Amino acid sequence: MQGVVRVALDAMGGDNAPGEIIKGAIDAISEHSEIEIVLVGQQEVIEEELAKYTYNKSQISIRNAQEVIEMAEHPVMAIRRKKDSSIVVGMNMVKNKEADAFVSAGSSGAILVGGQLIVGRIKGIDRAPLAPLIPTETGVSLLIDCGANVDARPGHLVQFAKMGSIYMEHVVGIKNPRVAIVNIGTEEEKGNALVKETYPRLKECKDINFIGSIEAREIPHGGADVIVCEAFVGNVILKLYEGVGATLVSTIKQGMMSTLRSKIGALLVKPALKKTLKKFDASDHGGAPLLGLNGLVVKTHGNSKALEVKNSIIQCVTFTEQDINKKIEECMKEIGNCSEQAESLADEAVRT
Amino acid sequence: MQGVVRVALDAMGGDNAPGEIIKGAIDAISEHSEIEIVLVGQQEVIEEELAKYTYNKSQISIRNAQEVIEMAEHPVMAIRRKKDSSIVVGMNMVKNKEADAFVSAGSSGAILVGGQLIVGRIKGIDRAPLAPLIPTETGVSLLIDCGANVDARPGHLVQFAKMGSIYMEHVVGIKNPRVAIVNIGTEEEKGNALVKETYPRLKECKDINFIGSIEAREIPHGGADVIVCEAFVGNVILKLYEGVGATLVSTIKQGMMSTLRSKIGALLVKPALKKTLKKFDASDHGGAPLLGLNGLVVKTHGNSKALEVKNSIIQCVTFTEQDINKKIEECMKEIGNCSEQAESLADEAVRT
Repeated sequence: MQGVVRVALDAMGGDNAPGEIIKGAIDAISEHSEIEIVLVGQQEVIEEELAKYTYNKSQISIRNAQEVIEMAEHPVMAIRRKKDSSIVVGMNMVKNKEADAFVSAGSSGAILVGGQLIVGRIKGIDRAPLAPLIPTETGVSLLIDCGANVDARPGHLVQFAKMGSIYMEHVVGIKNPRVAIVNIGTEEEKGNALVKETYPRLKECKDINFIGSIEAREIPHGGADVIVCEAFVGNVILKLYEGVGATLVSTIKQGMMSTLRSKIGALLVKPALKKTLKKFDASDHGGAPLLGLNGLVVKTHGNSKALEVKNSIIQCVTFTEQDINKKIEECMKEIGNCSEQAESLADEAVRT
Repeated sequence: MQGVVRVALDAMGGDNAPGEIIKGAIDAISEHSEIEIVLVGQQEVIEEELAKYTYNKSQISIRNAQEVIEMAEHPVMAIRRKKDSSIVVGMNMVKNKEADAFVSAGSSGAILVGGQLIVGRIKGIDRAPLAPLIPTETGVSLLIDCGANVDARPGHLVQFAKMGSIYMEHVVGIKNPRVAIVNIGTEEEKGNALVKETYPRLKECKDINFIGSIEAREIPHGGADVIVCEAFVGNVILKLYEGVGATLVSTIKQGMMSTLRSKIGALLVKPALKKTLKKFDASDHGGAPLLGLNGLVVKTHGNSKALEVKNSIIQCVTFTEQDINKKIEECMKEIGNCSEQAESLADEAVRT
């Protein structure tokens, strides 16, 4: 244990802000005495919400930020112009070491851009991937990268594999996590140009447990713990996962409500089914970290409720206590800079 | 109606060959008098299986082919060496106009390579995409391309969009089908380099109903009729669709069997649920056509049963009657050759 972990929490971001966000903060501090939360956002709104609770006042404070970045805003413009927004103020706290982590359910684009432009990357890291945990039959897997910077190069994917492996081992607690690259077949010679070039480089990495290619079909079965892919593919996987899941569950519900007989059956089945489907709910595991930054930034779902917010805050404690960024830095020193081209990611973000 | 349609059917391909394949053929001819089926494969095996049925003998004949291409074989090697395999013999029948179409549940790789090397592409077509129908909440969508030739260029995607649109309109019967490109956001400026370059070209196409980008999340909801993507992404979508679906259904079944109460409920729910989940079964719609070839090649699932085989055969009838290839040829003449580079696809297939 390393003493108190300070988490800056975006009180204004997401569909359920500020109510569920602040409830999540209250729940987190009532479970963990070693957390200090700084609620970032419009002071009067936050105070009004906080007044509903009785809590240990030494664990929660407010940092006023009057502006709010809306979902529809252009990320780069928003980050540049809204200096007094909860996202920019919260990120600056991480940059200035006033907070160990920043958690937000706000605009993904703004969080991705802000993470890179404001917090900045760890030396040697070329891209900061967004790495959500996705539910599987056997637990969860880390899908890395689902961010905004598409068209990655092999060196980036190698860094993703290493960072993802460190995260799964030390934050999620999976020993010697199995790392696989998303591919259209399991043979080494299969794949597109990017995968074919990346595969042998991953095979050479001594510090990860690379198990080869994974076909998309095997992802929900839990075929690997760390699933490495370029962000376009990762985004497709993440969103399709949600889409197929939601569609199937709603189709099944409709089916159950279609006859009197099935309605009675549905009543009987419901508790057991709810428990089983809970396995397929990733909110228990918190939000998606943006890895490789000088500090931790966690993006939670836009529709996060208190439970996911609380878990995202607790995730920051493990991340900080386990000193994940130091482990990433050391790992990068060992392998040297993987980048084939020292491009500025910030510039890239501006172009997108 | 254009008289008889001749379909060469691979009697040896797939997990359930020859039993289910031949049953599918018998079912098809008993429903349609205008079909002639040539069963391609080991004569003695086919004869033994056929002896189990009473059927109109003028509608079924046998073409002997003693070799069988196994799933694990290298596609290009197999196509080159096994000249007397059911796949090579069947494809040659299409090439020589002895058959209008070839249907196989055999090795996908061999079918993709054989289609291009033996049957050959329509003039002006740069790549022959594999285009399966995937089930959605509202019906089916055509996912184009899921084939083996990854790293497509914008011109290829434009051709996929046009061929897919023709197929959905004239074979599946969707009027003015909505065409969308798979993307990581809905705004025009979003995407990877390929999508950003392709988007404006699709927008310019007057002969398709281009509705813009589709996020993977919207695919299961039926957000578009023709879903255009590069083959690596298409393969990920197709396999993840199957994977998430299978995992969820098995998780739900497990949940239902977990308590006595839920077991009773499951019995009551079962018939309605089965009917609803049937909507999510694409086998009703036949197999995946390999579009843009000089003839029709249809790949059915490796685990196809008689129903899918029958529907794949009937699909060939509609394809031939609607003269889809003539429509594709005309469409290609109008737009000219989209390719930026007159590469030989056959060469490409050899390299993969």
